[in-house]
Amino acid sequence: MKNEIEFRVEWGDTDPAAITFYPNFFRWYDWGTWNLLAAAGLTRDVLNTDYGLIGFPIVEAQSKFHSPTRFWDQVRLTSQVQSWGRKSLCVAHTLHVGDRLSAEGLETRVCARESAKHPGEIESVIVPAEIKRALSGGAVEG
Amino acid sequence: MKNEIEFRVEWGDTDPAAITFYPNFFRWYDWGTWNLLAAAGLTRDVLNTDYGLIGFPIVEAQSKFHSPTRFWDQVRLTSQVQSWGRKSLCVAHTLHVGDRLSAEGLETRVCARESAKHPGEIESVIVPAEIKRALSGGAVEG
Amino acid sequence: MKNEIEFRVEWGDTDPAAITFYPNFFRWYDWGTWNLLAAAGLTRDVLNTDYGLIGFPIVEAQSKFHSPTRFWDQVRLTSQVQSWGRKSLCVAHTLHVGDRLSAEGLETRVCARESAKHPGEIESVIVPAEIKRALSGGAVEG
Amino acid sequence: MKNEIEFRVEWGDTDPAAITFYPNFFRWYDWGTWNLLAAAGLTRDVLNTDYGLIGFPIVEAQSKFHSPTRFWDQVRLTSQVQSWGRKSLCVAHTLHVGDRLSAEGLETRVCARESAKHPGEIESVIVPAEIKRALSGGAVEG
Repeated sequence: MKNEIEFRVEWGDTDPAAITFYPNFFRWYDWGTWNLLAAAGLTRDVLNTDYGLIGFPIVEAQSKFHSPTRFWDQVRLTSQVQSWGRKSLCVAHTLHVGDRLSAEGLETRVCARESAKHPGEIESVIVPAEIKRALSGGAVEG
Repeated sequence: MKNEIEFRVEWGDTDPAAITFYPNFFRWYDWGTWNLLAAAGLTRDVLNTDYGLIGFPIVEAQSKFHSPTRFWDQVRLTSQVQSWGRKSLCVAHTLHVGDRLSAEGLETRVCARESAKHPGEIESVIVPAEIKRALSGGAVEG
Repeated sequence: MKNEIEFRVEWGDTDPAAITFYPNFFRWYDWGTWNLLAAAGLTRDVLNTDYGLIGFPIVEAQSKFHSPTRFWDQVRLTSQVQSWGRKSLCVAHTLHVGDRLSAEGLETRVCARESAKHPGEIESVIVPAEIKRALSGGAVEG
Repeated sequence: MKNEIEFRVEWGDTDPAAITFYPNFFRWYDWGTWNLLAAAGLTRDVLNTDYGLIGFPIVEAQSKFHSPTRFWDQVRLTSQVQSWGRKSLCVAHTLHVGDRLSAEGLETRVCARESAKHPGEIESVIVPAEIKRALSGGAVEG
């Protein structure tokens, strides 16, 4: 299960060197993860209502920057779960402009819900099996 | 009652023309308003707890851009309430680099609380007299 | 000549009140203008190469905010030139979520090129007639 | 040689979970690096004029997120060079709110100048010894 989104680099994403200011790549990775989840049927509403989850807060992020992107570039972001922990997942992202690889990112996120014991606090929980299945290509179970 | 804050223009604020991307001026105006409020003793906690307000949501914003700001410029933002409506206020901002006027902004904001009748919804309320006084130079009443 | 773009509100666009942080509306207006220009055949390359322009720097911007946008909202931004000055143009933007009007924006921009006399400096110039025509619905002349 | 900067978390930095949207941490790391360089006498002007460098473009970035930061938090960012490559450096950042560690970041950057052979292109160069010295605590040599 992979998801692709396409978009153009905006003027405000780029800096005086005329290339994308690097924190924006992480903004794109975050957006890629939301879109990957939605493509698997796991919109925020579904996560909240059907699974009692608040979402997948980030605990680690990294990126390699191979070549810059510039204003108006048509960018293709591919996102997929690369590995699963018991209570976490690792999402891999690649960013291309045409055939050229621009950047590769990795986000580690935990599966989280609001604590029943301590309202207002967050606790990590075991990733539900249906979520694993949905993000591994299977259908979300009704 | 005026409040001044100073900061430098960051790399990511600027664009390929090497000048600040204009939406960032509004980010600065918003920040100027939070700092003006805090300088008057009206931090978010005080607004929430002492006045039952959620804050001052924006209903209109405008800016004139007189001259650009660039990376590393030391910028001085001056903010003050320019006029009061019954349920709203208008905050005026001026942005200088040294003696040079860079931009002038105006934000119209309403005084808002969560609706008692319709929880989750927001309603505008008459600006409390003590808030007017605090932002007009008087001390916040205990 | 109108141009429409559609996109979703991203997580990072929204604030603790779960609504879009208002400077992002101006980011969208700027993006709407670039897309309007491109739809009229006036990409940045064409502006630079065919017309010797650096673009249309902003001199004034304003927005009315009628109702909030939230995470994942599908937003429709409509942009068009509302009026022409001799050396400037005024771009009007409306932002809808479905049928609901969220915000209206106005950007005043000048037609600018690099000064021949003072390299590195910018000067405003009379808007080329073909650019007016292209943005008023006619085709760009070859 | 370490450098510290302090600032407050802004409203627009935070998301509907009322915590900082994670790409902003990288914006802060970038800002920490510019401030570290300036504290060592290596402002952008000095890098350009005295060393013929365009700066230190990013090739890799990572962050661990230990605990969230929230609106109005007073944040302390400490930045220092952790290791040197022949043509690169690795900048380590730690972010605290009071005594609490919020995040740790690492940026790998190359020392770069415009190519003499291919104007408009960038090439990595050996880090000048004086720059190493300046960032390791010694004074910049005149």
